[in-house]
Amino acid sequence: MTKRVGKQTLYLPSCPAVAGYAAVVGKKEGEGPLGSRFDYIAEDSYFGEKSWEKAESHMLKQCFSLACDKAKIPASELDYILAGDLLNQCVSSSFAMRDSNLPYLGLYGACSTMAESLSLGAILLDGGFASAVCALTGSHFCSAERQYRFPLEYGGQRTPSSQWTVTGAGALVLSGKGKIRVTHVTHGRIVDAGIKDPNNMGSAMAPAAFDTLRAHFRDTGRSPDDYDAIVTGDLGALGHDILEALFKADQVDLGPCYMDCGVLIYDLTTQEVNAGGSGCGCSASVLCGHILKGMEDGVWNRVLFAATGALMSPTSSQQGESIPGICHAVVLEREA
Amino acid sequence: MTKRVGKQTLYLPSCPAVAGYAAVVGKKEGEGPLGSRFDYIAEDSYFGEKSWEKAESHMLKQCFSLACDKAKIPASELDYILAGDLLNQCVSSSFAMRDSNLPYLGLYGACSTMAESLSLGAILLDGGFASAVCALTGSHFCSAERQYRFPLEYGGQRTPSSQWTVTGAGALVLSGKGKIRVTHVTHGRIVDAGIKDPNNMGSAMAPAAFDTLRAHFRDTGRSPDDYDAIVTGDLGALGHDILEALFKADQVDLGPCYMDCGVLIYDLTTQEVNAGGSGCGCSASVLCGHILKGMEDGVWNRVLFAATGALMSPTSSQQGESIPGICHAVVLEREA
Repeated sequence: MTKRVGKQTLYLPSCPAVAGYAAVVGKKEGEGPLGSRFDYIAEDSYFGEKSWEKAESHMLKQCFSLACDKAKIPASELDYILAGDLLNQCVSSSFAMRDSNLPYLGLYGACSTMAESLSLGAILLDGGFASAVCALTGSHFCSAERQYRFPLEYGGQRTPSSQWTVTGAGALVLSGKGKIRVTHVTHGRIVDAGIKDPNNMGSAMAPAAFDTLRAHFRDTGRSPDDYDAIVTGDLGALGHDILEALFKADQVDLGPCYMDCGVLIYDLTTQEVNAGGSGCGCSASVLCGHILKGMEDGVWNRVLFAATGALMSPTSSQQGESIPGICHAVVLEREA
Repeated sequence: MTKRVGKQTLYLPSCPAVAGYAAVVGKKEGEGPLGSRFDYIAEDSYFGEKSWEKAESHMLKQCFSLACDKAKIPASELDYILAGDLLNQCVSSSFAMRDSNLPYLGLYGACSTMAESLSLGAILLDGGFASAVCALTGSHFCSAERQYRFPLEYGGQRTPSSQWTVTGAGALVLSGKGKIRVTHVTHGRIVDAGIKDPNNMGSAMAPAAFDTLRAHFRDTGRSPDDYDAIVTGDLGALGHDILEALFKADQVDLGPCYMDCGVLIYDLTTQEVNAGGSGCGCSASVLCGHILKGMEDGVWNRVLFAATGALMSPTSSQQGESIPGICHAVVLEREA
């Protein structure tokens, strides 16, 4: 059976199933419109640890345990962990999983990591290389802020186009059993539209989302109408509108089913997050909280999840480079 | 056909083939004992660019082109690029590949990246998800030194256990055609032996190499005698001896077929590299220069390539954390 559909899309004949999932977030995310959808809301931004980096690691570990528990699969029965994060050298993931005793594949897809880990996990299952895997990622506002921007104590002003790094994690266990299944994957190419402002990630990533989603529709012969929900993450309000405009110029209407995780997770009028949420934890917690719960409840049956990432670093921006973006897309379907 | 062999090892029935490979290194590496084995030796540590980070990116791009050329596969026919590096947010890989127009999977396995990218690439081929992929990684002494340790201008003294980050890159194209084939993969678990000295990576990574190689021998029922060469990368002289000792305590003699990329790439008595080479580019350039050429020439027929990585960051070390290690192993066989 051929698994490649067009140039960039894979069809997974075995349709690996979502056995369990969990989302852990911080206080601010818990106060947002999706507050009731998360498994755990931490009151303490330190998660009981002595640094924000250790807090991020703690949150990932907690989220991983919750997902295994909800999947009713002991962690020791997993064949792989696929994980990554935004910290330099991806330390929050590797430290979170260092006691797991499980084969570990470290990924770096910036904020697209949830889609990258989920898609590679589904491929491992579909190819018969694994029978159960966990895809895991997250981010923490405080550790990201001081690594990418300024010390929190500095209290720097933020531009209207800037986004707020989500304190949150998502973990998803894939195995043979479950009602929600992964049917297709479209892996993205790097797209650099020349945006140089690191406080305008939505504009930098929207062209990558456009490129991947357009490839997905082309490869599968589907249109936005074939989906109950198309969910990008984390373009924010600005990137959301740019993506709609790019498709409109292409005579395609994304329609009311189009949403962005960075817009969904906060109340943009009251929570002072400017253009919305971002970070690996944004699309991860929205997928593993809001979206999968909605699918389970029958709100959506077929979802196109397209996480986006900005592949820059503070050093590349300081050296005058523009911001390359990437977007990986995964189709999730609920069995009738 | 079952693809899982024991808890951690995969057998790849289709045995994906190495279609082409290339190694690009810096001046110091060119002056070492493997100098004649590399495809290109740069005289200029800047590779004609304005910063060392851009130089690293340039080197990766050059290496990628050479590998595609030697494989006689146009880059546009590749289904995937799997790449990663040591720079914060893996920017040298993503900037190197941003104009490639190819689906891109970013990885973070620190210095184990060559084995991680090669193994995942082989899995994509074996499962029918791709027909040609490129695995790519590298490192640059100057960009690594200023990111991980001190500004080069500072001229800091180095401890005897410290290793020298290789300026080098390796790229490997996998497809259906070629005499050298990937038969098995053993993905590693994270192992933290409690070493806290970031100038002693060999000691931190050797226990991970031991864990993965032991799992490989257990899963496959093979012993070191079944290999013409067992090549770790990049344990250096200290880690090399620790790994031998760990196996000896386990009543296993690695024998004369055991080598380490960090020991092979420099002349340890004259090149002032202390315990040897390290960095993603160490095992990558030694594999894609020395080892694969040796296999082609019939020096070795069956090789166990086990790249090692230290999953720490300067921040984790500053916060008093120990150094978790990882090692992924790949079996390469030359057809008779």
